Amino acid sequence: MATYSPRLHRLIEALRRLPGVGPKSAQRMAFHLLDRDRDGAIYLGNMLVEALGGIDRCPRCRMFREDQQCPYCSEARGRSGQLCVVENPADLLAIENSAGYRGRYFVLMGKLSPLDGIGPEQLGLSVLAQQLAEGGVSELIIAINPSVDGEATSYYLAEMARAQQVKVTRIAQGVPMGGELEYVDGSTLSRALSGRQPV
Amino acid sequence: MATYSPRLHRLIEALRRLPGVGPKSAQRMAFHLLDRDRDGAIYLGNMLVEALGGIDRCPRCRMFREDQQCPYCSEARGRSGQLCVVENPADLLAIENSAGYRGRYFVLMGKLSPLDGIGPEQLGLSVLAQQLAEGGVSELIIAINPSVDGEATSYYLAEMARAQQVKVTRIAQGVPMGGELEYVDGSTLSRALSGRQPV
Repeated sequence: MATYSPRLHRLIEALRRLPGVGPKSAQRMAFHLLDRDRDGAIYLGNMLVEALGGIDRCPRCRMFREDQQCPYCSEARGRSGQLCVVENPADLLAIENSAGYRGRYFVLMGKLSPLDGIGPEQLGLSVLAQQLAEGGVSELIIAINPSVDGEATSYYLAEMARAQQVKVTRIAQGVPMGGELEYVDGSTLSRALSGRQPV
Repeated sequence: MATYSPRLHRLIEALRRLPGVGPKSAQRMAFHLLDRDRDGAIYLGNMLVEALGGIDRCPRCRMFREDQQCPYCSEARGRSGQLCVVENPADLLAIENSAGYRGRYFVLMGKLSPLDGIGPEQLGLSVLAQQLAEGGVSELIIAINPSVDGEATSYYLAEMARAQQVKVTRIAQGVPMGGELEYVDGSTLSRALSGRQPV
């Protein structure tokens, strides 16, 4: 059986370790890099080395950081007493850039998903429990995406906060700006209705 | 505006150079590598360096090769007089592994697509023209995928062969094994009918 030469085969295998990349995509990526974008391949190789050497996780908020001083764990942010739990770094940036929130964060880097082997330990929830127990957090804001796993994770977080008598809130779910009721799905509409606010 | 730290940003940009990877996928890949698969990231980095250093294209068939001696351009294969033109290395392996073909190959690494800036030069067709002119090729077998660009490419290749009085054939198009006429699309069926063979 004819196969690719050993190095090409290993490159394809290595590309398959990227999430969402199957054998066909990995093959296409390898051909593209070797044939059309050798500079891109060198750049990617260098950036991988640079990132692995220089990026770690903040032990407090679990966000990726490069400096010893995490910008999201400053004294000033700590004084707000607010701690916002998000699923991943992209969600943190979305809130930071648009919601006018200036408290601290906690990045789970995932959701509770027992079937995928992701439990409280994988999400670093013991670190969060310790911060809640230490005091200094007056409100835990849950900003987890509303999916099935997300609901379970939110429930778990709320229980953790209640166990320490910390106030716990969750970002509102309802009709998005610009959305039309006619096209909004039933469960969103039912959440929007049950979460109605006095005007 | 809050953004990712510089190294993380550069890693995401580097991953975006892979074909079919947009900003969201690149972000997800970077998080995955940094958070869950640092070994995978190191492996990918090493394999990129290894592949770039060791893999080039055979000047004759344009297949990727590692050794000076390309396995698809041997004397024995040359004696068959057959030259099979394929779009990419994956197609070469597919034919090699299942079709019982033991002639030489020519890998285009793409199709003619003027809108994407891919002309005869990008596909190395001057190399092919030279091989046809040199003699030694008794039959040019076109095994290009039947798409719109593929048809144009096949037509161009056939003209090249005819200009050198080389016999040119194309792999048959029709109903695939296990296919059901009821579900086969109209143009495949029309090709199958017009390409009918005496039994």
